[in-house]
Amino acid sequence: MITLHHCVSARSFRPLWALEEIGVPYELKMLPFPPRVLAHAFREVNPLGTIPALTDDANGALFMTESAAICQYLAARYSPGVLDVALQEPDFGRYLNFLHFGEATLTFPQTLVLRYTHLEPPERRQPQIVEDYARWFHARLRTLAPLLEAQPYLCAGRFTAADISVGYALMLAELIGLSGRFAPSIADYWSRLRERDGFIRAMRAQEAAALAQEVSTVPAPQLRP
Amino acid sequence: MITLHHCVSARSFRPLWALEEIGVPYELKMLPFPPRVLAHAFREVNPLGTIPALTDDANGALFMTESAAICQYLAARYSPGVLDVALQEPDFGRYLNFLHFGEATLTFPQTLVLRYTHLEPPERRQPQIVEDYARWFHARLRTLAPLLEAQPYLCAGRFTAADISVGYALMLAELIGLSGRFAPSIADYWSRLRERDGFIRAMRAQEAAALAQEVSTVPAPQLRP
Repeated sequence: MITLHHCVSARSFRPLWALEEIGVPYELKMLPFPPRVLAHAFREVNPLGTIPALTDDANGALFMTESAAICQYLAARYSPGVLDVALQEPDFGRYLNFLHFGEATLTFPQTLVLRYTHLEPPERRQPQIVEDYARWFHARLRTLAPLLEAQPYLCAGRFTAADISVGYALMLAELIGLSGRFAPSIADYWSRLRERDGFIRAMRAQEAAALAQEVSTVPAPQLRP
Repeated sequence: MITLHHCVSARSFRPLWALEEIGVPYELKMLPFPPRVLAHAFREVNPLGTIPALTDDANGALFMTESAAICQYLAARYSPGVLDVALQEPDFGRYLNFLHFGEATLTFPQTLVLRYTHLEPPERRQPQIVEDYARWFHARLRTLAPLLEAQPYLCAGRFTAADISVGYALMLAELIGLSGRFAPSIADYWSRLRERDGFIRAMRAQEAAALAQEVSTVPAPQLRP
């Protein structure tokens, strides 16, 4: 059994989405956000105090905390030729690049915008940082527009785990109010992604689990700490 | 032929180090830092304006910009069973996790410390951000200390591309003055890494290329813009 620790619509949505796209059984453990503050016992599961945290009983040694890496792991192990892109395919390198790009280049700058507009108390808010990293995000994202004018997904001629990595960055942008400046081809891409059955199932799964486990259903990026 | 665009001791040191560990031929194109400002023509190579940028004539479609993803690509294609960790190995998931952790969790926070102590003009410096993200870096890094007390490398019982990803984060910490607070096992790990023949060859290769191509040999993270 795969177990995923998750906060509603936080980065851990990436592995949840991958699990629903693949259709592999899993247990979803919901945490209040931020877990570092509100779920102290979680430190025994993950000393970092961050989500996601994933274990897989098929591999006792496995413990993963990086959302894009988990998507690649799940794709390679449970979805060869579909969500995964193999070494033998011409787009293997591009696949790896977009897996990293979605998190390191497109998500991290948004966490700065979120932190210094919303999560920090008013006296620690930093409009300059918010402006610097909103601009960073849009400048990096814009480079995807020509590609997405020419093709429906990022690489390999199909939907892959790389689209989950980048797709979550677009979901976060919508949640924190940065999606109004998406180029048309990027807005269309985001529409295609969120209409997928796997995405819709993942949204329903987190809502049902939050209700059952008595955690707020408000997306973590919109919760006031 | 593989071509790597690189600035001295910037993130693109990761793929350079991987190339020297593997021993595959490559061409090293040096750029002044920051290339977005000082090498406008580079935008034709990489619209992001960032380094690294890697092409591989063995795969005409290949174009990569994420340093940890490039390490994984080079390992998978040119170093199976050595720098790469295969799906069949028990540590495959941990390998992927550390590849991402080195960049998304350990390097990005340091770029904030660097930017707001050193790269921005004095009126745009932000001591609060520097403090917030220096603390972030040390808190995340500390979680590796128990692992590195028990074993010499991060996973799979050998030196892999994951050590290059995390190792560069330690190199950057030393360059910007954050290494004084390394836990003993982490300081020892960093000593082991920088004594490797592959690391030493990569350091020499960038110095020789910088001199030959008339680019400053000062590490990019220490250059005044």
